[in-house]
Amino acid sequence: MCELLGMSANVPTDICFSFTGLMQRGGKTGPHCDGWGITFYDGKGYQNFKDPNPSCESRIAQLVQQYPIKSCAVISHIRQANRGSVSLVNTHPFTRELWGHYWTFAHNGQLSNYQGLETGRFVPVGDTDSEIAFCWLLNQLEQRFATRPDDDALLFSFMAECCDQLRELGVYNMLLSDGDVVANYCTNNLHWITRRAPFGEASLIDEDVTIDFQKETTPNDVVSVIATQPLTNNEQWHRMLVGEMCVFKKGEVIYHREGTPHPEPQQGNEATSSQ
Amino acid sequence: MCELLGMSANVPTDICFSFTGLMQRGGKTGPHCDGWGITFYDGKGYQNFKDPNPSCESRIAQLVQQYPIKSCAVISHIRQANRGSVSLVNTHPFTRELWGHYWTFAHNGQLSNYQGLETGRFVPVGDTDSEIAFCWLLNQLEQRFATRPDDDALLFSFMAECCDQLRELGVYNMLLSDGDVVANYCTNNLHWITRRAPFGEASLIDEDVTIDFQKETTPNDVVSVIATQPLTNNEQWHRMLVGEMCVFKKGEVIYHREGTPHPEPQQGNEATSSQ
Repeated sequence: MCELLGMSANVPTDICFSFTGLMQRGGKTGPHCDGWGITFYDGKGYQNFKDPNPSCESRIAQLVQQYPIKSCAVISHIRQANRGSVSLVNTHPFTRELWGHYWTFAHNGQLSNYQGLETGRFVPVGDTDSEIAFCWLLNQLEQRFATRPDDDALLFSFMAECCDQLRELGVYNMLLSDGDVVANYCTNNLHWITRRAPFGEASLIDEDVTIDFQKETTPNDVVSVIATQPLTNNEQWHRMLVGEMCVFKKGEVIYHREGTPHPEPQQGNEATSSQ
Repeated sequence: MCELLGMSANVPTDICFSFTGLMQRGGKTGPHCDGWGITFYDGKGYQNFKDPNPSCESRIAQLVQQYPIKSCAVISHIRQANRGSVSLVNTHPFTRELWGHYWTFAHNGQLSNYQGLETGRFVPVGDTDSEIAFCWLLNQLEQRFATRPDDDALLFSFMAECCDQLRELGVYNMLLSDGDVVANYCTNNLHWITRRAPFGEASLIDEDVTIDFQKETTPNDVVSVIATQPLTNNEQWHRMLVGEMCVFKKGEVIYHREGTPHPEPQQGNEATSSQ
């Protein structure tokens, strides 16, 4: 399995703190040794860093941790390969153009019988289930809507239905962004938190780092972080349910579709994960 | 105008030396202050670094200079904006998928009357003449060849004809790669050099750096570097002619179309530029 990290904010915000926690899972506190990537949007443009080497040893990951790139929409991924070889072409996130915008995608999970998914003009370049799912999803969206619909509920309810179809093929946890919105879909492991005033302190689970967000923010800041597992041990993270979808814009939820409880009583019956 | 840098090699080779020379032109020895980018291929995958800030001040550019990323196909660009705002979305190189491969493009020059170019499914995201030209070129290639032709001469002679059409709109110097080949087209300023055994020393024009390639290479290495202006002052660079196109693969020229002499006698009548 892999680990996902996403952010949506109403002011350009760096993700150094959360990224530092995530990177430790890339071969140090976690087994995710097969590369990592992160995409930062700035308006309609994006900046991407990728490395097929383990994140905890990566010079490029060090730069991203130390150099505060500020963005309102971020997608990141560290990989433990299950489908597809360990190589740059298979390293998430993947980016393609749709409706005149760049869409960026990362997936956690594993699909079966995905080879027959019809991807239309979105031809996969690598050989992962994830990239094929992404290409299929974009093709579905383009076939259904020739241009981006103004009605967000119409767009995202259709997107959720497409994600439901992918979930029928296996485990499908997703982050997807066009730089404006950050959409998340959960099969089994996805958590999010929204931080806003009054801000407090947070401590990473994976590294001995504490941050006082009050010193780093202004009172109007709203920042939502989405991650496979909670990254901090003193804040309350929402655990998403099966088939639940959230879409964030400027840090706020603008679309939400309910999920159903997780099948495993021992792990899944709590709506939130905290300690 | 902007500066282009490309490389094609038969073994994974770092471009730190040439990139160090190029980066000085981004606001220090040259006026190209409006961002920079570089794309390294590894097989069918690619790694991209971009920054809308001047390259000579960029932390990310420092990393790329110091961290030897080895690749057989590289495209780089530093920008002095003429068409389109200074922003990440307008920062070269641009990458799109065609025929199941990622194609990466950078342009030096300025076009007029480019707004009407038909780009088909390759919808531009930014607002530069360069990105529109790239999208138009990919659309021409896809319309002409449903899949990549096996015959390189057929493919690249058609590509050269498309580039000729773009040259009718203004100045069109181009680098284009799919990770396998690196194609170059010249209107007025493009130079290249192939380095092979016996290797010697080279000194950068823009920075007090000398490299002894014999220490960095093996006898079988073949490395071609393409740049807007020669980067070294003690080697012989080929100056490309008007409408000339060269396609490199593993460092060697695999396709060549002749050009015509440059119109300016004082700058253009020498086939090579050296000193």
